Amino acid sequence: MSARKLYELAGKRDNQVFSPYCWRIRLALAHKGLAVQHASWRFTEKDSIAHSGQGAVPVLEDNGQVIHDSWNIACYLDRVYADRPALFDSPMSKGQALFIKHWLEGVIHPAMIKIVIMDILNCLDEKDQAYFRQSREARFGVSLEAFEDKSPEQLQRLRQALAPVRQTLKLQPFLSGQGVGFADFMLLGAFLWTGSVSDTALLESDDPIAHWREELLKSYAGALEGVLRPGF
Amino acid sequence: MSARKLYELAGKRDNQVFSPYCWRIRLALAHKGLAVQHASWRFTEKDSIAHSGQGAVPVLEDNGQVIHDSWNIACYLDRVYADRPALFDSPMSKGQALFIKHWLEGVIHPAMIKIVIMDILNCLDEKDQAYFRQSREARFGVSLEAFEDKSPEQLQRLRQALAPVRQTLKLQPFLSGQGVGFADFMLLGAFLWTGSVSDTALLESDDPIAHWREELLKSYAGALEGVLRPGF
Repeated sequence: MSARKLYELAGKRDNQVFSPYCWRIRLALAHKGLAVQHASWRFTEKDSIAHSGQGAVPVLEDNGQVIHDSWNIACYLDRVYADRPALFDSPMSKGQALFIKHWLEGVIHPAMIKIVIMDILNCLDEKDQAYFRQSREARFGVSLEAFEDKSPEQLQRLRQALAPVRQTLKLQPFLSGQGVGFADFMLLGAFLWTGSVSDTALLESDDPIAHWREELLKSYAGALEGVLRPGF
Repeated sequence: MSARKLYELAGKRDNQVFSPYCWRIRLALAHKGLAVQHASWRFTEKDSIAHSGQGAVPVLEDNGQVIHDSWNIACYLDRVYADRPALFDSPMSKGQALFIKHWLEGVIHPAMIKIVIMDILNCLDEKDQAYFRQSREARFGVSLEAFEDKSPEQLQRLRQALAPVRQTLKLQPFLSGQGVGFADFMLLGAFLWTGSVSDTALLESDDPIAHWREELLKSYAGALEGVLRPGF
């Protein structure tokens, strides 16, 4: 029995992880070779993570520590398990990864969620659907149906926004350079989030980003087993 | 007499550096405490840098080596002068900085150049103006006058595109974290480029990015002396 437990957002079925923030930590733990017990959590189950002092996942319990927020958890893991493969290999790499996090959350996630919003709704456990619809419609100011945009133009906007990643991956194998780091897990987390709920192909098959994604999925197959939709 | 010489793009007057790529290297050399002789260069003076094997600046001569391209020069400086303050402090920090470079050149520079294109034309040495107009009009597919956009909407688009930087600088003093690195010089290079040619205020005065810029301008005042326009 592991003393380590990760609360992750789940859909209709347990283990259907679809939060980009939870994916980051699942991948980070695998990268560090740290075993963990997974706990499926739904949006409306605020009580079960109340001991973290807030109401969102990921939440990590680790030898009596309770840490929330994917960025905080990544920093914690690198500090406490410094002898294992690094998520950040230097102060500057952590500082720059914080910029990449804000770019992903401010530019890429919003471009993706317009495409997959109804897919997310449809994968949710029934008890979460009203909460999700209400909170997201309040945030977006329109109905989920009106917010959704699966048009070729929206796909093109996402692909265009990803251009700096594409150019980088033409010159080096990972967003973090020659080796994989937390920046890669943050980007892969976005693709696993959308790929966990939706059939829509966000990338052209010959996109260097698709190649990078395939390679990482192979490398982290253990952490993904039984979690992704068939055919992802 | 220094054995080190940097060819930099200049405008009507010598020393009016206005290429973002040249600014990066001027700042990087100052960061490393490396003295350098500056050589003002104009677009049409291809002959004087022919020994670099190509036709663009920055070009650095350093103890018999001739290196061109700002990224290559930064990597060279960190390799050869590894005992001096770092531009990249680790492999991941270099890898991630390459992403930031592509983001700047693909998103931020294009948003800026629409605002300052006529200011650039007006600061050019007369012999460069026809070359600049012809090459840029071919690139943009319209006249420079039609391409220019100093509207509040374009300024807003630039400020919105900078949001991930703004959020990062609310959490740490530099784009590279707690200390300054090449990522900061690449971003500052963009502001020095536009600020060298134009009066248009790209940032609101209470923007955290404006504060970061002020602090860096103070720290690198020696490298900037006599180069910036009065009032920048």
